[in-house]
Amino acid sequence: MPERLGPARKKPLFDKIALIGLGLIGSSIAHVARRQKLARDTVGFDADADVRRRARELRFCDIADTIEAAVTGADLVILCVPVGAMGDAARAIAPHLKRGAILSDTGSVKSGVVSAVMPHLPEHVHFIPAHPVAGTEYSGPEAGFATLFLQRWCILTPPDSAAANAVQKLTEFWEAVGSHVEVMTAAHHDLVLAITSHVPHLIAYNIVGTAADLEEVTQSEVIKFSAGGFRDFTRIAASDPTMWRDVFLHNKEAVLEMLGRFNEDLSALQRMIRWGDGDGLFDLFTRTRAIRRGIIAEGQETAAPDFGRHIGEENGPAA
Amino acid sequence: MPERLGPARKKPLFDKIALIGLGLIGSSIAHVARRQKLARDTVGFDADADVRRRARELRFCDIADTIEAAVTGADLVILCVPVGAMGDAARAIAPHLKRGAILSDTGSVKSGVVSAVMPHLPEHVHFIPAHPVAGTEYSGPEAGFATLFLQRWCILTPPDSAAANAVQKLTEFWEAVGSHVEVMTAAHHDLVLAITSHVPHLIAYNIVGTAADLEEVTQSEVIKFSAGGFRDFTRIAASDPTMWRDVFLHNKEAVLEMLGRFNEDLSALQRMIRWGDGDGLFDLFTRTRAIRRGIIAEGQETAAPDFGRHIGEENGPAA
Repeated sequence: MPERLGPARKKPLFDKIALIGLGLIGSSIAHVARRQKLARDTVGFDADADVRRRARELRFCDIADTIEAAVTGADLVILCVPVGAMGDAARAIAPHLKRGAILSDTGSVKSGVVSAVMPHLPEHVHFIPAHPVAGTEYSGPEAGFATLFLQRWCILTPPDSAAANAVQKLTEFWEAVGSHVEVMTAAHHDLVLAITSHVPHLIAYNIVGTAADLEEVTQSEVIKFSAGGFRDFTRIAASDPTMWRDVFLHNKEAVLEMLGRFNEDLSALQRMIRWGDGDGLFDLFTRTRAIRRGIIAEGQETAAPDFGRHIGEENGPAA
Repeated sequence: MPERLGPARKKPLFDKIALIGLGLIGSSIAHVARRQKLARDTVGFDADADVRRRARELRFCDIADTIEAAVTGADLVILCVPVGAMGDAARAIAPHLKRGAILSDTGSVKSGVVSAVMPHLPEHVHFIPAHPVAGTEYSGPEAGFATLFLQRWCILTPPDSAAANAVQKLTEFWEAVGSHVEVMTAAHHDLVLAITSHVPHLIAYNIVGTAADLEEVTQSEVIKFSAGGFRDFTRIAASDPTMWRDVFLHNKEAVLEMLGRFNEDLSALQRMIRWGDGDGLFDLFTRTRAIRRGIIAEGQETAAPDFGRHIGEENGPAA
């Protein structure tokens, strides 16, 4: 799965990029923007003074002391804050946005972000919402790295009124970052991500909570015997709580719809177990293998056993 | 997480080990038995002639043509077949077992295996059921490797009547393989594994099935955008269908009990989303992080971001 970033650009795409929010996503964009020379200046800001201090030490971009200073003169501004903080961030930057600037974001929900951000924006700004489908379970400015978006997909959800050249410019940006770009409506995005991201996180958080609350099985037993499958779920259940609270609050309808499908299917499986329908179980368990093969073939996953956890072991598995 | 196997033994633990079933688990035991010199002879058998042929080419142990030849004279026989095949295997080997031999297995369910195997056994054999909590999503004799059990836990569920020296000998065997050993009752094992392994597999199979059946979201979209979290679930949903069908058919009560808890908790979460209870969501999402930290601290999981998927990338994350 690992690939490489291409050579850096000879001519930057933007004069000044402003990154608002310096967690995993904002700091990773800063790393790759520097590595690929995507802008003459990249300036970051975070509402948390402690994050700004740590980001300054990490030196992945210049850090502004105020949000106004960060966005002033920027021709690309990217909001990398939790979905619930997008509205406030938009209100704060709106008066200082350069005429003709592109404003984008990286939120995991799109319809909710559009309704929170749009009302604050001046007419002369091009708002092109985006969602890079990439991440790790770590958060904060220390978690960022240049290859986070490499070979991942970035979804743009431009409104009908969006200027084609602004969409084109943002597409070039994400391609220069190493991503593939797909365009769809905000509503469709929210439905697709509900099943490929939001419901998976929800059920991972849920089973980890269920296991933590049992009385018949101790916490120590859950931890020791987690290699039976449980530990896989703990990774995404260790993701940033604020980010994920906001996702569920802002993509309620699509999440509840997909969760309803999940529950229906789970009831059917439960019934197969209760009534000993081995053929039904076998059929599903065979069908699900094909999807993983597709994900590996499309370059979205490693083919190494166990996510590559055994890489580097003497007498480990064949690759 | 990767550690190393210790030096090979000077004196083998057994004269002859027989491995019945040469999939991922049987072949991995063969690899490590050879690497650590745990027996003078290790002989494997598989009911499938094609598997025997492939195993012969892989040369990880001697391969017998009949189950009788495999177990004759063995002082340790390990059944590494799917749970549903344990009874037939026990009946086939029973007349040929050496007096005083230890018979064990590697099934993911213990009560069901005990009831299937015990009735066939002669009095002079020590039956000590075992379950090494380790695996990958790959199956077959090609999938085995020597470090599969390294630093993992192996659970023994000896019956009350078991001879202490037989339990001790099997404990030494699994420790020589690189595992930690824990002893508990078969019933408790089945409850613990229901939450740490069986229900996680069930919900992983289920969500992959749900995603495959949607009409509003294409298969291609599910694959492309799987890095949002979904792809993690596809790993265990690519596990061996026969093995997992048998697990659910033979650990029905414990699985349905734990699934009931999971469903109750999921309903509560669903309600929090519907009513916008951000504090409730945030509390759960914070609590679940601690369990992963415990799993990493106990050496059952890598601390590398994203399971180490980015290992080897230039400009990848800090370790």
